[in-house]
Amino acid sequence: MNPLYPLLSRIVPADRAAMARAQARQAQLTKPAGALGDLETLSVRLAGVFGSEQPAPQGAAVLVAAGDHGVAQDSVSAYPPEVTPAMVMNFLTETRAGPGGAAVNVLARTLGARVYVMDAGVDAELPTHPALHRAALYQGEQRRGTRNLRFEAAMSPEETYALILAGAALARRAIEDGADFIVPGEMGIGNTTPAAAITARLLGLDAAEVTGRGTGVDDERLAHKVGVVREALGRSPVTDPIAVLAEFGGFEIAAMLGMMLETAAQRRVIVLDGFVEGSAALVGTALCPQMGDYLFPAGHCAERGHAVQLAHLGLKPMFDLGLRLGEGSGGVLALPLLRAAAATLREMQTFEEAGVPG
Amino acid sequence: MNPLYPLLSRIVPADRAAMARAQARQAQLTKPAGALGDLETLSVRLAGVFGSEQPAPQGAAVLVAAGDHGVAQDSVSAYPPEVTPAMVMNFLTETRAGPGGAAVNVLARTLGARVYVMDAGVDAELPTHPALHRAALYQGEQRRGTRNLRFEAAMSPEETYALILAGAALARRAIEDGADFIVPGEMGIGNTTPAAAITARLLGLDAAEVTGRGTGVDDERLAHKVGVVREALGRSPVTDPIAVLAEFGGFEIAAMLGMMLETAAQRRVIVLDGFVEGSAALVGTALCPQMGDYLFPAGHCAERGHAVQLAHLGLKPMFDLGLRLGEGSGGVLALPLLRAAAATLREMQTFEEAGVPG
Repeated sequence: MNPLYPLLSRIVPADRAAMARAQARQAQLTKPAGALGDLETLSVRLAGVFGSEQPAPQGAAVLVAAGDHGVAQDSVSAYPPEVTPAMVMNFLTETRAGPGGAAVNVLARTLGARVYVMDAGVDAELPTHPALHRAALYQGEQRRGTRNLRFEAAMSPEETYALILAGAALARRAIEDGADFIVPGEMGIGNTTPAAAITARLLGLDAAEVTGRGTGVDDERLAHKVGVVREALGRSPVTDPIAVLAEFGGFEIAAMLGMMLETAAQRRVIVLDGFVEGSAALVGTALCPQMGDYLFPAGHCAERGHAVQLAHLGLKPMFDLGLRLGEGSGGVLALPLLRAAAATLREMQTFEEAGVPG
Repeated sequence: MNPLYPLLSRIVPADRAAMARAQARQAQLTKPAGALGDLETLSVRLAGVFGSEQPAPQGAAVLVAAGDHGVAQDSVSAYPPEVTPAMVMNFLTETRAGPGGAAVNVLARTLGARVYVMDAGVDAELPTHPALHRAALYQGEQRRGTRNLRFEAAMSPEETYALILAGAALARRAIEDGADFIVPGEMGIGNTTPAAAITARLLGLDAAEVTGRGTGVDDERLAHKVGVVREALGRSPVTDPIAVLAEFGGFEIAAMLGMMLETAAQRRVIVLDGFVEGSAALVGTALCPQMGDYLFPAGHCAERGHAVQLAHLGLKPMFDLGLRLGEGSGGVLALPLLRAAAATLREMQTFEEAGVPG
């Protein structure tokens, strides 16, 4: 049996009847019809997720999965692989302002989200820390970073399933802790390379159409990176979504897929950040199209290939701030807009209640 | 002496040295250079407003000025003028969720802003209410709504100055109460018509280029509305910014101008909502170009003419949610993004602090 079957079988479509009631309610609220624009659309989708025309989502969590990549030894990034564990420590360190000194910590602290960090396969000995969650099944050295997708399968099927289930377990934990919004995030030097390969294969595109500058490579290194993605695609003809994920990696992408599937199964909101997160979402919707009902893209991301992911998912993001950081940082910025959208359905008066001439 | 001189003379440019220090600090924070996109630009502008490379803005207030318009009797809106006082009551009414049942109340409650409502000249007897602030100098009936700009000057010079100063006084009050972010907002059936006339005159554009559907007029009424704006423009050749404002109205636009000038004078942030607010901003920057240093446009607004206002101001908004409600609602939605931008400068670790390889 597919090890994901128990998880996938729990994902049901959003509640269309609640969405219809929310749509009708929006038309009665004290504002010109449609004047809240996309906020109305978002509110109706939230009604579908929570099965109520007055959705009342509470907590939010950003789950940052970190992993290293064999391909990072292959000059595809502007930063050395040592940055991955250093940034994990930055996510955890105590600062004057509170725990964590990275962008995602600061944004989460400012906007009301709890941060969970997951070691999904970082190539370093990380210390024990209460906010650092480890993928369940470390088995020797090979889990400390994927193999180089240019030359071989980045992950084994067993690793892939293990990481998906570990991501699902962390989402379950965050939901138990009170999160109704789950923001999957990532840290992994080199991870826009596997994300590009996954996106190209699942959408049938050429490497050049989906390979971008990541953290900021120059023209020469970008051309090399496109070549690496093209070699990886040429090396393996797989098309099954899980096989594609295993072939190209990485551990944190598999973990984010698991977070997304579990969040959808529990009928909570998946706030979708950037390009790497988008590659996990493409695998998820290929496995289970109704997972798309739970996906809420945050912002346009400056990374090449993000727009084509969103077009494929049929979803419009909320802002365009030119972010290209990852970590789930963009997803955190979307939380106030989603909370506000839900609040209009719950708290605005109708024309009748307010005695306003419609 | 120009009655605005004492106010205008207090407005100084943003602190360029603090902006340079903020720019340098952004480059040292633990993220790829520029990866926070427009959030970095916003953080640097906030540093300029507050004169610190680690700006720490606190409270936020949305100041909703309401006024009626003679032109509203002239079939330029999809709603009758009675909606203006009814919505003012909706801003003030006690609901299950708290005070106020309009979109701006709900968004402000959700996102941490205090709502102040101003009767800038509403054509109704409004009850006394602790959250309802009245323009200082009611003198007989003519202040209950402007005259019809199609046929005559909407406001007298005395009315215009009085409302500007009343708006400034309300902003002063909100700042005394702790607001570092001021969101001017408005309610006034018919007010996209004077906003279009102001925008057309100050930017030298034809009525058709800046006149939109407001709360949702059909094609026929839109053509009529363009004609009304064109007649108003043809009737008077004034170009002086205050004369343009007086000629076309309205009371709430004058009040919002006063809020903006006072906020800039006190070196706080003006969060700029939609098209009607934009017309006040155009008058303000025509009077005092450095007021632009304090303007932060929230989102693209669906009303025709908003984009050309922003292009003239040289400012990029933060999101595009297709809002066209007014009330300051879009401005409130921008507050979390501005708070987050400032927090990155204050709370993110530098590469050196975090020991991350740059």
